Amino acid sequence: MEKGKRECNRSIDIAKKSQIIRSHKHNQTVVLNNPVYITSGYSIVGKKEGNGPLKSTFSKIVEDEYFGEKSHEDAEQKMFEHAIRGAIKKSGLGKNDIDIMFSGDLLNQITSSSFAARSFDMMFVGIYGACSTMALTLAIASCMVSGGFVNNAVVSAGSHYATAERQYRTPLELGNQKPPSSQWTVTGVGASVLSSTKVNEKSPKVTSVTFGKVCDWGINDVNNMGAAMAPAAAHTLIAHFRDTKTKPEDYDHIFTGDLGKLGENILRDLLANANYPVDNRYTDCGRLIYGKSQNQYQGGSGCGCAAVCLNGFILDKLRSEEYKKILFCATGALLSPTSSFQGNTIPGIAHCVQIESGGG
Amino acid sequence: MEKGKRECNRSIDIAKKSQIIRSHKHNQTVVLNNPVYITSGYSIVGKKEGNGPLKSTFSKIVEDEYFGEKSHEDAEQKMFEHAIRGAIKKSGLGKNDIDIMFSGDLLNQITSSSFAARSFDMMFVGIYGACSTMALTLAIASCMVSGGFVNNAVVSAGSHYATAERQYRTPLELGNQKPPSSQWTVTGVGASVLSSTKVNEKSPKVTSVTFGKVCDWGINDVNNMGAAMAPAAAHTLIAHFRDTKTKPEDYDHIFTGDLGKLGENILRDLLANANYPVDNRYTDCGRLIYGKSQNQYQGGSGCGCAAVCLNGFILDKLRSEEYKKILFCATGALLSPTSSFQGNTIPGIAHCVQIESGGG
Repeated sequence: MEKGKRECNRSIDIAKKSQIIRSHKHNQTVVLNNPVYITSGYSIVGKKEGNGPLKSTFSKIVEDEYFGEKSHEDAEQKMFEHAIRGAIKKSGLGKNDIDIMFSGDLLNQITSSSFAARSFDMMFVGIYGACSTMALTLAIASCMVSGGFVNNAVVSAGSHYATAERQYRTPLELGNQKPPSSQWTVTGVGASVLSSTKVNEKSPKVTSVTFGKVCDWGINDVNNMGAAMAPAAAHTLIAHFRDTKTKPEDYDHIFTGDLGKLGENILRDLLANANYPVDNRYTDCGRLIYGKSQNQYQGGSGCGCAAVCLNGFILDKLRSEEYKKILFCATGALLSPTSSFQGNTIPGIAHCVQIESGGG
Repeated sequence: MEKGKRECNRSIDIAKKSQIIRSHKHNQTVVLNNPVYITSGYSIVGKKEGNGPLKSTFSKIVEDEYFGEKSHEDAEQKMFEHAIRGAIKKSGLGKNDIDIMFSGDLLNQITSSSFAARSFDMMFVGIYGACSTMALTLAIASCMVSGGFVNNAVVSAGSHYATAERQYRTPLELGNQKPPSSQWTVTGVGASVLSSTKVNEKSPKVTSVTFGKVCDWGINDVNNMGAAMAPAAAHTLIAHFRDTKTKPEDYDHIFTGDLGKLGENILRDLLANANYPVDNRYTDCGRLIYGKSQNQYQGGSGCGCAAVCLNGFILDKLRSEEYKKILFCATGALLSPTSSFQGNTIPGIAHCVQIESGGG
């Protein structure tokens, strides 16, 4: 107990320091002089997500949580393979046209991504950003494409409820109850193909990326991810507004990844306090993905949450030009079960991508 | 048993497919039109590494395996903080001059890197490439700097013997014996500062990067990482030679990350069979780091192995111009304990960075 207390204190000391030093003194936003086209997006989800309000926007709904495989881990890996193949097919490009794959997930050593990469004959870069992964892979890959280093890249991120529960909390068989502040890990994978040239007429484009700094405000409740990640989201969004001299009203909508309802409310307060009120221009994907009757606590979470929302209804609305310009800011909680058992607090991070519709 | 066998068969089927489809049809090499300067490098190692033949090349040797902390995990995190701070100090740049940090390690959810990032007021990108991480962070960050997206970046990778043994194999307290094909995870962290302009007169420079593809030749022995990774190293090096129209004799030396002695011999055979014999121009860092009397089995391994060799004696020899041009090809085994328990084979990857001395 004494030992645990000391460790916890050390962790909170660093957290306090981190809270203080997260400055806005660096320019954190890269404006892409050569915009990067999102040639296609593909989303595959599980049954629960397929029963939610975004049902019609997903590319494929899988009823079987095992996806025909022997383990949930194999199912998650197969969902990555399926989503990546789906995005490439939808792009209209040949599979040999895709140079490189950026991918990440929540499993230890990101095995879903790297095992899926065996099935694709392309360069592979493994990314770990927890639930910020969809935005982080988009951000890094957009720089690589915009800089002329590669022509076409596929990026993906995803999660599976059963593998995440087992690894981060307790196996489903235990039937543990969740506290009210918890969220539900999304079963789903999203994948996008990014291109240096416009392949499809209506392709939205990435026009800037804002990389986040790690923020730790001392939260140590592993069932309250929204509170742990909201400060990082606020920091990254404010950095974006400041760097680009914009305000929330310059965007048709702003999305965060998986703060859930509680985290969304915290972020609203933090942004309002910083004179960037977002009002009804902002929604968290974790709030969107499940319906009210779906017993989802604070909403969806996991790498898959932001990934399937982006590669479903968000890209749809950009293609139809209902949205002309949005911010997609996925958030991650950078903890591990070991770090929590050792009494550490939960560092958060958020990366933001500005996406504009292809027209005009 | 029946279940395990079926899973294993599926895994080996994919491995076979992967072996066949790893083609050389893509250009995997990015030649950096704007070379990227390695302004500084810093290496911190544990006692065993400090007693080895490279002793004089490390920036700091820590005798205490806990580095004054309460857990090995905290020690690893502190080594990251120390190495990053050390590299920034050696660079002569102010800490506010460094825009972004790329880092990865072997712990679940790369907590050593992301927890260390709390202490630095810079953007953070988490990378997972297992033991290929030093080359992967160098490769991605070099593209970001060369492309003009950031001016200065710090990259780091590392590992700790005690945290890796506990997580991947068995806790040290069990006193398990290792089989002869095993390797010894290096306790150490290496960090480098990369810059778009020449800050220090003798700074070596990154002139090209070759991203690897995932290769799985069906190895499932978790105590034989060298055999699992050697095919990926061969694939990436051959891709580099082909893309740049060079041969091994065009380089003063070629280094791999942590294949160990057995893996080094396998790679020599694979390269010779492909008409790229490397002879005495090639050494694996895992072979170099420990002396013959150090009870090190096949040699060193872990993210830290290649990282501390690069940020120690390799950069030293480039600064002194004993080497004018080298290849640094770090290799990673993309397994997890769960993937192995479920009967999966071990995918490997290798990323390669070409580094030239600053003179001329």
